[in-house]
Amino acid sequence: MDDVHMTHAHGLFISLEGGEGVGKSTQSRILADRLRALGHEVILTREPGGAPGAEDIRRLLVTGEPGRWHPMSETLLHVAARVEHVAKTVRPALDRGAVVITDRYVDSTRVYQGILQGIGGPVVDELHRIALADLMPDLTLVLDLPSTQGLARANRRLGDEDRYERMGDAFHARLRDAFVALARTHHKRCRLIDASGTEEQVAQAIWPHIQTLVSTR
Amino acid sequence: MDDVHMTHAHGLFISLEGGEGVGKSTQSRILADRLRALGHEVILTREPGGAPGAEDIRRLLVTGEPGRWHPMSETLLHVAARVEHVAKTVRPALDRGAVVITDRYVDSTRVYQGILQGIGGPVVDELHRIALADLMPDLTLVLDLPSTQGLARANRRLGDEDRYERMGDAFHARLRDAFVALARTHHKRCRLIDASGTEEQVAQAIWPHIQTLVSTR
Repeated sequence: MDDVHMTHAHGLFISLEGGEGVGKSTQSRILADRLRALGHEVILTREPGGAPGAEDIRRLLVTGEPGRWHPMSETLLHVAARVEHVAKTVRPALDRGAVVITDRYVDSTRVYQGILQGIGGPVVDELHRIALADLMPDLTLVLDLPSTQGLARANRRLGDEDRYERMGDAFHARLRDAFVALARTHHKRCRLIDASGTEEQVAQAIWPHIQTLVSTR
Repeated sequence: MDDVHMTHAHGLFISLEGGEGVGKSTQSRILADRLRALGHEVILTREPGGAPGAEDIRRLLVTGEPGRWHPMSETLLHVAARVEHVAKTVRPALDRGAVVITDRYVDSTRVYQGILQGIGGPVVDELHRIALADLMPDLTLVLDLPSTQGLARANRRLGDEDRYERMGDAFHARLRDAFVALARTHHKRCRLIDASGTEEQVAQAIWPHIQTLVSTR
């Protein structure tokens, strides 16, 4: 890993991104198991959430009506949850040399609030710089799937945490395009992964990128 | 009122600030009654809170342990609640020409999080600019009282909303100094009010500042 990607002292920071139902949490678990089998300490976490206060904020974000929040309040709530998550979970793990795998991170805020809810990518970036000293993952896996397939999967497992899923088909189609564009813009950090195959096929597509990262450390 | 203070199109925006138990909510009510008696539409509100989503965020801020949040998360939660409050309550009222009286606004974030919790005043100001286009009150009344007297009053009325009150005597003594310094720095917008007298005496000290503001519109 070259210095450009070295944003923290010891551990390895990996995020999985993409729309609803693309398989982020499943692939995170498979990846964690594989790395643990190789002897790595792995912290598997998610956003919004991943620390007690951040989970309290999560309830405000993922439940209730789609129009519940002003887009700027929603952005700030995501950043606030992220600060808790990083301070209480991510940073301590990276500092002791662990691998942190998070299901969503700042790219989700860029795409959902920055692009789709109209706050603007540069505003999200500015907040990330102020609040999180611009801490970025070493590697981001962007899982890609037609939004109709993803939503069909997501809707099968939902309880009351369905606020984003109810934002409409057009929203989710634009979401996919925005994630693909993000992966292309940040191609040094991001890998675009075809998530339309079986769990095993997707895991096989992911693994070489992780091997490269782990072997060069 | 000169153009320098005219930060919005029609209404009048007044904030009351100061430490715990200085009498902000009592004086807000007295002031609202007096202005209503003169025929003004008055919206009496408070922070954190003042809109449904903002009240949900308030619960996260004013309950629980003093060390519950990272200071930056706490700052962002206050700003998020403020965005909801302004978007759903303050702005609509100002736009139709009402007087808005709020018990706390951005100066509380500057003092509590910016100065006492170490985030820095300029960082709070930057977030206020990004999230709220720097919307400031026309007039801010800073109620001043020795912190021991204020806490004694505050502790008599507390339910479970005691998180800030439990931050310790040294915190509250520094809080008073920080509010006095803020009132002096922003002397065009702020009036420092001696809040050690009776309710009537404090109300009498406040009223001339309001009369000046109302009569010049």
